[in-house]
Order: sequence, then structure tokens, then C-alpha cells
Amino acid sequence: MSVTFPAGIRAAGVAAGIKGEGELDLSFVGFADGMVHSGAAVFTQSAAAAAPVQVSRSHLASTNGHLRGVLLSSGNANALTGDAGSIAAQLMARSCADQLGGDEREYLVCSTGLIGIAFPQDRIRPGVERIVEELGTDSRAGERAAHAIRTTDTFAKQAEAAGVGFRVGGMAKGAAMIAPNMATMLCVLTTDATLSPRRAQDALGWVVDQTFNRITIDGCTSTNDTVVLLASEVGAEPGPDFEERLLEVAAKLAYAIVSDAEGGSRVGRVRVVGGLNVAEAERAARGIANSLLVKCSMLGSDPYWGRVLAEVGAALPMIEMSQVSVAYQGIRVCEDGVDAAARLSLAQRRTLDRRMNDREIVIEVDLGRGSATVEVLTADIGHGYLEENRGTS
Amino acid sequence: MSVTFPAGIRAAGVAAGIKGEGELDLSFVGFADGMVHSGAAVFTQSAAAAAPVQVSRSHLASTNGHLRGVLLSSGNANALTGDAGSIAAQLMARSCADQLGGDEREYLVCSTGLIGIAFPQDRIRPGVERIVEELGTDSRAGERAAHAIRTTDTFAKQAEAAGVGFRVGGMAKGAAMIAPNMATMLCVLTTDATLSPRRAQDALGWVVDQTFNRITIDGCTSTNDTVVLLASEVGAEPGPDFEERLLEVAAKLAYAIVSDAEGGSRVGRVRVVGGLNVAEAERAARGIANSLLVKCSMLGSDPYWGRVLAEVGAALPMIEMSQVSVAYQGIRVCEDGVDAAARLSLAQRRTLDRRMNDREIVIEVDLGRGSATVEVLTADIGHGYLEENRGTS
Repeated sequence: MSVTFPAGIRAAGVAAGIKGEGELDLSFVGFADGMVHSGAAVFTQSAAAAAPVQVSRSHLASTNGHLRGVLLSSGNANALTGDAGSIAAQLMARSCADQLGGDEREYLVCSTGLIGIAFPQDRIRPGVERIVEELGTDSRAGERAAHAIRTTDTFAKQAEAAGVGFRVGGMAKGAAMIAPNMATMLCVLTTDATLSPRRAQDALGWVVDQTFNRITIDGCTSTNDTVVLLASEVGAEPGPDFEERLLEVAAKLAYAIVSDAEGGSRVGRVRVVGGLNVAEAERAARGIANSLLVKCSMLGSDPYWGRVLAEVGAALPMIEMSQVSVAYQGIRVCEDGVDAAARLSLAQRRTLDRRMNDREIVIEVDLGRGSATVEVLTADIGHGYLEENRGTS
Repeated sequence: MSVTFPAGIRAAGVAAGIKGEGELDLSFVGFADGMVHSGAAVFTQSAAAAAPVQVSRSHLASTNGHLRGVLLSSGNANALTGDAGSIAAQLMARSCADQLGGDEREYLVCSTGLIGIAFPQDRIRPGVERIVEELGTDSRAGERAAHAIRTTDTFAKQAEAAGVGFRVGGMAKGAAMIAPNMATMLCVLTTDATLSPRRAQDALGWVVDQTFNRITIDGCTSTNDTVVLLASEVGAEPGPDFEERLLEVAAKLAYAIVSDAEGGSRVGRVRVVGGLNVAEAERAARGIANSLLVKCSMLGSDPYWGRVLAEVGAALPMIEMSQVSVAYQGIRVCEDGVDAAARLSLAQRRTLDRRMNDREIVIEVDLGRGSATVEVLTADIGHGYLEENRGTS
């Protein structure tokens, strides 16, 4: 289902020869009527932003969020590719306009894959021709679009939710280079609700801050991160539950990205409560979530709270450790800044041992200073990550 | 040689039973005449600073840098151990005073090892008794002291240098949890020069900023980092070459720490040149040096400049990538922000392939904006790091 779950959305995923060997590597998501409707996007903050990000940013600005669709390629990030890269990214938009109608500025473009390698620009036009042949509004079309944006992702990430009078769908890809301010991640969210471009952009910014900006895999910020929202305006203008459903879909996709981290086997839910304000809770949560040593402990199913507090101490130099406690899987292993394992019953210890082998590990730190809470998702680090990334990938 | 290379310094390393099984785990470095001379220290910035750090900080302040020596234990960090930990750290200093003379505030104490586990305080007094028996001013005594501070270090780190009329020696331990602002690292620097406590502190701060604060292994800040300088005042007041020799010894020890990174096989020398100012060059250098993806590339001998520039772009959001170039091992692989491999001669490519297997990899990034230069040392990440740290270590 995913992106084609809402009415008025069409999609396709084809093999354009960017990856080679008939692998799906070019996706399109747009409006089924081929016309212009509301759209919004959020991009990487990196100064090394890839050519497609630069082109999309300019198209979004010049159309004020009136879009026809988005073309996404995988296998080559078209990042740090100079003028030739800019030309290739522009050609992606122009090929859409030539074959699907409208102005090239009404199309956004995204790429993901290897960095710094010339983009095979001769694959674009034939690829978009194939897109035109395959476009569909059914679940198979959405499924193929979701598959065609994968790089080292082991599964296609799709999600959907229904509200009162509207639907929301989405697809994403992630895997590595995932950190605050998004990730090597691409995501397309769709809805059949009627939204002004302004509401679409506000809703998307609000949702991204709470989802894709609060996941981390390796602390590396990507050159290509893009999240797009397309609203087909088939239905009416929705109530405030629209933003909630959009959040729900984005949160599912963000979770799926972390659960499919390169070489990872665990999802870590780092929850910092009792902060004086959100800023300090977030600083502590990010410090823990990005810690290589905490990730190693997760790999080893070890509730080593000492490393967690070492990160809190590094992130918040003014904090009073004797007020802080730590729980793993809901079982408090540190209280008032010192070991609390001695106070655990045998049953609690057994539960903790068993639950440290769960697929999801919840690390909750109470700063004991106020009521601000922040949650950041992270992955453990496995040997597969090192093997995947020792070569160019 | 190391700490006992300068005149007027005595040292010992003994097995106190903190680690168990007759392993060396308690060191002392102090003045051979048993009297008070100049000393200085720099400590971790972490709010989770261990009990010995808190005790030492207070002792240094209350004596204004007039010290008799430093006692260092390994195997247990005495960090996040609450009131019992404070009592144990104080007992370390008091045991020195009782058996070596003077006031307990004239002794600094350091610990390194596991975090959050009760310190075996009953081992302290018998350990210090053994220290008193073994104290010596010869190279064997210095050697044993350097061995006794090791945790997962595979070799003892020692260095020395001679200036006009003075000598400098030093020992250090590192291995992991090494990041900006120092590391799980302990270091004792010694000299026979005559220094005021003020000059000792200024010299140490200047040196630490350029050495131990510019190495990173895993981006994790430790609870126990301490660097101590002891000046026995046997010789005269030295000229400005004292600071240079102190820098030389500290730089050697810092390099040794990175070259002995847990599970690492490579030293990365990340040199950022052409910065508008030191602050931006340093931000870029730290971003590259801490990047898990860059570390993976080092593990794989892959000169993947795209990941390097992705980090530069993330660290310096305003930079113009078309001005930036990257060289690995002195061979330029990226120019004006794009791939330059096509321009390399066959001989250059062969040289690069061969030299990417060197023990040290120099990554030089030219920001093309000014003349500021910063160098940060880093290690690759190996499978051994994950294995070492998946359990409590």
C-alpha cells in the first residue's frame, strides 16, 4: 500500500540501470490526475548537500509548494559531483516534465547511494519512459516504488494510517549515515487530504522534528536527506487529527529505519525524563544514543548504566549525578547516581537478563530536575556495520 | 625510563589486588626527597567526574599546586560510586600521607577501570605499604609504574625528552573512551626543572590543548581523565624550550594512546588546512576524526573522500564545497569538491593503493578559505573494539 494508500496518488518503481542487473532503482510518486497540487519538503542541513537537494530546494521555493510529483533514484547519490551532477539532477526534473507534463520546477528529485561518483545521466530519460509505462495507483505500484529507493536496506519501509475523511501513506529508505538532522534517508509521505502548501510545510516540519530528526544510527549526517509530502486534494480539508496521523506514519517509518540499521540487531529507545527543559533532555538523549560504548553494550545485552551516565555527564556538565537514575527495560539499575543492582530481587534480575535479549531495549534516564521528556531511537553497532562500510558503499 | 628520567623523581608500580591475580594495579609517582614541590593537573570536564577526580581537584586547589606525589590505581574507576567512592578516594591520599609523610592534601589520586562498581577500598593501605617498599628512582621503577596504570592497553606508554639543563619524562594509559576533552586516560608528566606552580599549570594547560585534547578514539568522554605534572626543582628555572619539550613528550604519549586504540590497527592523522580560523578548522577536523564511516574507510584502506567531505559539510554548514580539496597520504583525490582520481597517473594510483595500507593514514583537507591549520589524531574502528566493549570493560 504505502504511498498509493491515499486516493489520487500514482507511483512506479522501475529498473533504470543505475545500479545495473535489472535491479529496481528509479521511483516516481505523483498525483494521479497529472496536475499540480500541494507539496512540501524538508532537506539535509549539510553544506555538502547533493545536487538533487539543491535542485529540489530551488524548485520548491520557486513554485511555492505547488508540485506534480517526485522522482527518486538509488545507487548513486549524485553528491559532490560538481557541475555535471547539477546538470544530471536538472535533467531528472526535465525528463519528468517532458513526459508527464507541466514545468520542470513542479518536480522534486532525490538520489541516494555512493557519494562523489559521476552520475550515469544517460539512464535518466529511458528510466522515466519506463516510469510512464508503469505508473499505477494500486498497492503493487506503491510497493515497487518503495523497493526502488532501497540501497543497503534489507526491506522496503512502508506505512499508512487513516483519519476522519483522509488517508496518509508513506515510504522511506535508511540504513546508515543516519543522524540528527535526518539521515541518508529519503521519505515520501502522501495524503488525499486538501492542504494549503503552507499547512503541508508546517505539518511536515513539525513531524520531522519529532521523528526523523530523533533517530541516529552512526551519528553521520548525510548529503542527500529529503522528506517530501504530497497532498492530492481529493478529499476535504482535514481537522487537526491530520497532523497526528502524519506523525504516526512518519514515526513508523523512522522506527523501521532504525530497526533495519546496517549491521544492527537491536533498536534502542533512549528516553530521558525529568529534564529541566526539552533542550537539556534532548542533549542527554542524543549523547547516549550516539555513544559507541552504549551501542556496544546493547550489542552485548549488557545493562551497563555507568556508560550511560558517563554520556549524561559529558553532555550536561552542570548536572548533579546524585539526582539521576537509570532503568533498562523498566528495571532500575542505578538510583541516585549509584548502582542499584544490589536491591533487585532475584526475579527482577532474571527478568532483566531475559529482557536484555529483546529486539528493543528501553534505556530510561531520569535527570530528576523537572518534567521535560525526550525520546531518541538508536541502533546497536554490529560487526556487519564495519564490514558494510569498510569499502565504498 | 619515563617518569624517572628527570632527576629527583621516584616511582613504583605494585600488585595491590584491585585487579586480582598478582597483576600490577597501583602506581605512585612523587619526589625523591619526599618533600613538597610544584605540581599541576588538568581534569575531565564531565559532570560525572569520578571520586578521585573530585578529591584531586580539591587537593590541588587547597595546596595551590604544592604537591608530594600522585597515587594511581587501575582496574576500577571509582566512578559513579557515591559516598563510599569518595571515602575510598580520600583514603588513597590519606594512606600516602600516613606512610610517606606530609598532609593528605599534598597527594593527588587517580583511578581507571570499570565504572559504577564499588571500589575495593581494603586494598589501598596494604597496596601503599608495598609502594613504600618498592619506591625507586631508576628506570625499572618508572617502567613498573607505567605498567601498573594499564587497563586494556596492550603496552605501557612512556616518553622522555631532554632540554637545556632539564629533563622531561612521562607515562600514560588510554585505550578507549578517548575523545575531546581527554579520554579514559591518565598521564603523569615529570621534570627536574624548577617551575612555579603557576608556570606548571599554564604549561600543562597549553600542552594538553594541543595533544590529549586533540585525539579521539570513540568520541566518548571519560569520567576519570587526569593529566598531572610534577616538577622536582632539582635543576634551574628553564627557558621557553621547557614548554616545547613538555609538548614533545605529551605528543608522543598522545600518539601512543591512539596507536594502541582498543581493536584499532591504524592511526589517522586528520589535518585540516586553509581554515578561516582555528575554530572552524578544528570543528571540521573533529567531525572527520569522530566519523564512524571515515573510521570504517580507514579499516578498509579506502580513500573514500566523499565521506570526509560529508563530515565537513555537516560540521560547517556555510562552507562552499567547490573550494575544498582532499588528499590521502599526500595524494589529492578530490579537487574543487569533486573527484580528482581521473587526473592521477598510474604511478600515483599505485602509490596511493600501497600507502593506504600504511600504519598511519594522513587525511588532509584544504578548506581554501584562509591559513588556519588543526590536526586531530584518530584511530580506525575494528572488530576488536566491538568485542572488547560488548561486555562491561
